[in-house]
Amino acid sequence: MTLKYYHAEPVANSLKSMVPLIEKGLAFESIYVDLHKFEQHSDWFVAINPEGQVPVLDHDGNIITHTTVINEYLEDVFPAVPLRPRNPIGAARMRYWNKFVDEHVMNHVSMHGWHRMVGIIARKIESGEFEKLMTRIPLPDQRKKWQTARSGFSEADLANATQKIVYAIDKVNAQLAKTAWLAGDDYTLADINFYSHCGMMVERMFPELEVAKRCPPLVAWRENMTARPAVARALAGEDRTAPGLRTWRG
Amino acid sequence: MTLKYYHAEPVANSLKSMVPLIEKGLAFESIYVDLHKFEQHSDWFVAINPEGQVPVLDHDGNIITHTTVINEYLEDVFPAVPLRPRNPIGAARMRYWNKFVDEHVMNHVSMHGWHRMVGIIARKIESGEFEKLMTRIPLPDQRKKWQTARSGFSEADLANATQKIVYAIDKVNAQLAKTAWLAGDDYTLADINFYSHCGMMVERMFPELEVAKRCPPLVAWRENMTARPAVARALAGEDRTAPGLRTWRG
Repeated sequence: MTLKYYHAEPVANSLKSMVPLIEKGLAFESIYVDLHKFEQHSDWFVAINPEGQVPVLDHDGNIITHTTVINEYLEDVFPAVPLRPRNPIGAARMRYWNKFVDEHVMNHVSMHGWHRMVGIIARKIESGEFEKLMTRIPLPDQRKKWQTARSGFSEADLANATQKIVYAIDKVNAQLAKTAWLAGDDYTLADINFYSHCGMMVERMFPELEVAKRCPPLVAWRENMTARPAVARALAGEDRTAPGLRTWRG
Repeated sequence: MTLKYYHAEPVANSLKSMVPLIEKGLAFESIYVDLHKFEQHSDWFVAINPEGQVPVLDHDGNIITHTTVINEYLEDVFPAVPLRPRNPIGAARMRYWNKFVDEHVMNHVSMHGWHRMVGIIARKIESGEFEKLMTRIPLPDQRKKWQTARSGFSEADLANATQKIVYAIDKVNAQLAKTAWLAGDDYTLADINFYSHCGMMVERMFPELEVAKRCPPLVAWRENMTARPAVARALAGEDRTAPGLRTWRG
């Protein structure tokens, strides 16, 4: 049995499937894809994932993409250390939160991260070079995101994203005031999802929201997450981002 | 064991969980929620689903919402007639497509439907009355969608939605040129998802795309879907939409 995990810095999607691999005690080959060299759009990588995006799980030659899909797959194949409740109601609660994070959190935090980091990188690229890079990006949406990062996200879009993040942290906080973990009594993939995309960096990225004052249950939960050995090990992974641009990880 | 399914017209999300219930041969109580009377925002319904949205599954008093979550739940609890492949690779393929439809298809077709149907309904409501209705909608995103439907979606947003739909039908068509069903050899929840949100009505809603000429594999697949007894039974369900406004169902 061979497991390979292609990933970038331990944050957002790259962190989200790294944590379950470690929590489950699985032996896997970790392959760092250097986004700063645009390796995700290189021929060797697009041959593995035609969408040109990290992370990717390769299990005995079977390629699985998209972290929510990868994480459910890991539950199906390696159920010994469960991160998805075994009772269907619990699994449904976990999926409800996964869906919320995937559709109503991820892209909004991502826009602020791109605005502050990728925008600076994109503007440093010379004109002809940038257009050449764009032709190598397989997904039209991703191409558009790079172009917007270069020209600058609009204030209205950034304000809308912030509003959605406020809504999300209040919603998550209300749940964590009632239960220890997002889906109830058990630590699940939903916690890993919200932590990776928002919880781990929300205070650093949005100090003006005063999260510590506004959301004590969320902050307590975040400390519990960060204290987990598997999370700590994942967070210690390689990061080739220039220190001044480490928007997400600080 | 008691199953209740709260739903509206047999299209989009309301159809999407109705088909699995029927495919699996489950006995369930069908409860029609009249969107034309805004029953989804009424006290009795919001007591069941605080988000004020259809459909809802009530299984022995446990409330499950969001169709992708409901459908995975039905697989977990009633696996006898499987609509999710039992091998993990197949399940991952199904989830890849479910995610694609949920995040890159549903909202775009929905915007065109709202533009052509809900917009007309929203503009017919008198001013004070409309604001009163808005205060009863629990989800801020949904409130915003009603307000935009009333004032009119922008041409740019509609054109962007059309572009995304073209991308989606070409992507789905390319898959259906290779395999009989979206996730491979088996009919799965992914087929039901794309059919309910786009496949069943794409030619009627977007005749200018010339889908029959552009996508013969998609059209052949659509005929196979429509010919399924469970799909036909679901489609025959109640519809209180004024005939002139039946954008989706024709």
